[in-house]
Amino acid sequence: MDGKKTIIAVYVENQAGVLTRVTGMFTRRGFNIDALTVGETESKEYSRITIYMDGDASEQMINQLYKLVVVKKVEILQEDSIKRELMMIKVRNDSKNRSEIMTAVDVFRANVIDYSVESMCIEVTGAPSKIDAFVKLMEPFGILEMCRTGIVALDRGTKTLLAE
Amino acid sequence: MDGKKTIIAVYVENQAGVLTRVTGMFTRRGFNIDALTVGETESKEYSRITIYMDGDASEQMINQLYKLVVVKKVEILQEDSIKRELMMIKVRNDSKNRSEIMTAVDVFRANVIDYSVESMCIEVTGAPSKIDAFVKLMEPFGILEMCRTGIVALDRGTKTLLAE
Repeated sequence: MDGKKTIIAVYVENQAGVLTRVTGMFTRRGFNIDALTVGETESKEYSRITIYMDGDASEQMINQLYKLVVVKKVEILQEDSIKRELMMIKVRNDSKNRSEIMTAVDVFRANVIDYSVESMCIEVTGAPSKIDAFVKLMEPFGILEMCRTGIVALDRGTKTLLAE
Repeated sequence: MDGKKTIIAVYVENQAGVLTRVTGMFTRRGFNIDALTVGETESKEYSRITIYMDGDASEQMINQLYKLVVVKKVEILQEDSIKRELMMIKVRNDSKNRSEIMTAVDVFRANVIDYSVESMCIEVTGAPSKIDAFVKLMEPFGILEMCRTGIVALDRGTKTLLAE
């Protein structure tokens, strides 16, 4: 799992079934998708699928993606792109560990977004490695539930992607 | 688009092609997925697909999902669940607007994560309505690029989902 990873942004028309067509292309070619996000973009007509996958993106794969009429643009993100992920994690709340957890929350600039007698829910944003580190830190305290958005990434500097 | 929205969390085995199988189930039934995230969970074996869709989740749909052998658990999130989304947005950087942008960044507790002569990249986390409001605010300044992770959600309070 420590091999080369690639991040691909696929801009697609907002239509039912688009996601299945795009992910199907990866599945048929045996590529493993580690994480995927779909969200709105600067244009109402297009969504952006950000795919985090094992291995290299071949030219052939990019050509195959462009063959789908719903695909507007495919972009391979650069190594130094800005990568971010969001996690919500629910940990056991007990008086013994509370101050240790709160210190970690502070240091990681995380936020407690729900608090009950038995649990607290913490939101953390950052590069995936930072999120991994936070999860490790919380493990001894008892993780009840967690969910991660998967990576989104933008290249540094200025360019407009969807503009003609 | 202002109709009922549903958030479904599907816990699936980490296998190639799982995503296509799950999204295909929605496509075949004509359900429109607005946003989708796939990320790691508290268990190494399972990923969590969070789906934000139009309309109601029928019992039939849930049964269909359980028919996929890779599906471990399906959960419909409650109305009052904690919803979060992450956005990175790149806006034009010019001296005329800079202080207005920075004030918005402050108020929204957002962060500037990349800065160049021509553009700045801002990271915002929050409920989808907060993200929408921030996008509206940035529109007059010139949005160059943006990407959103789509929603992740956790129910409030305590329960363990993957534990036996």
